[in-house]
Amino acid sequence: MVRYFEDTHAGEIYELGSASLGLADMIAFAERYDPQPFHVDPSAADQSVFSGLIASGVQTLGIFMRLFATGFLNQTTSLGSPGMDELRWHVPVRPDDVLTGHLEILTARESQSRADRGILNSRGSLTNQHGDTALSLLVTNFIGRRPRQPRST
Amino acid sequence: MVRYFEDTHAGEIYELGSASLGLADMIAFAERYDPQPFHVDPSAADQSVFSGLIASGVQTLGIFMRLFATGFLNQTTSLGSPGMDELRWHVPVRPDDVLTGHLEILTARESQSRADRGILNSRGSLTNQHGDTALSLLVTNFIGRRPRQPRST
Repeated sequence: MVRYFEDTHAGEIYELGSASLGLADMIAFAERYDPQPFHVDPSAADQSVFSGLIASGVQTLGIFMRLFATGFLNQTTSLGSPGMDELRWHVPVRPDDVLTGHLEILTARESQSRADRGILNSRGSLTNQHGDTALSLLVTNFIGRRPRQPRST
Repeated sequence: MVRYFEDTHAGEIYELGSASLGLADMIAFAERYDPQPFHVDPSAADQSVFSGLIASGVQTLGIFMRLFATGFLNQTTSLGSPGMDELRWHVPVRPDDVLTGHLEILTARESQSRADRGILNSRGSLTNQHGDTALSLLVTNFIGRRPRQPRST
């Protein structure tokens, strides 16, 4: 059953599941979207301040987004997002790290400008297999409201 | 010539070049990183509030990141980024839109905790072929300081 805005509530906490990236995945992504030496070149990465190849932060965000979509948004009437805030990469993501996603809805309010939707503000994060927070962020989402029933006359 | 932190200055503005995404690129990215219907299914997207398929905001950020890396960071002693703020998707990105990147360095200061680096805070954006801002953000970057010359005695 699809969840409308009216079915979401501040204080709800979701475990979003886990995902992982291999070295080849990291390099292929970074060659296209973030070709810095410590993301694309294992030798250069070994000599860098990171002492080894690390995932692009954008790809790490992509892992969060995938878990958020499959573990929450795709069960709702999601109408997109205007943005994110306080996006932080706390510890580097290394090949084969297991990243687990978490979400807490902080606020849920009706839109003042669009009658078709409500607005969720949530805190999201990814934790690695050592229990360290790898990524944290605040995200805003538009969720469609439940259609009004026609009045019986 | 590589640019050290000392070679970067508040007020500098960079044009980062342009890039584009085709429909197949958008779907392939979203199937992996953001599988919401309006990013992966053209028919569902046509029926959505977006009236057609739009790029994942994470992929739009990836386009900015690519232009930022190739147009700025890879000419510097970049040491990574702790995060971004005020990430906003203003208008949807549609297939074959031409996105042009811009960067303005807002502040440049020495790190108080790490002697090897300085910290840049910059405003970045992508503009589409109609002149609309598609993406804007604030980004923090660590840039390596110029190595000290050994003193002659």
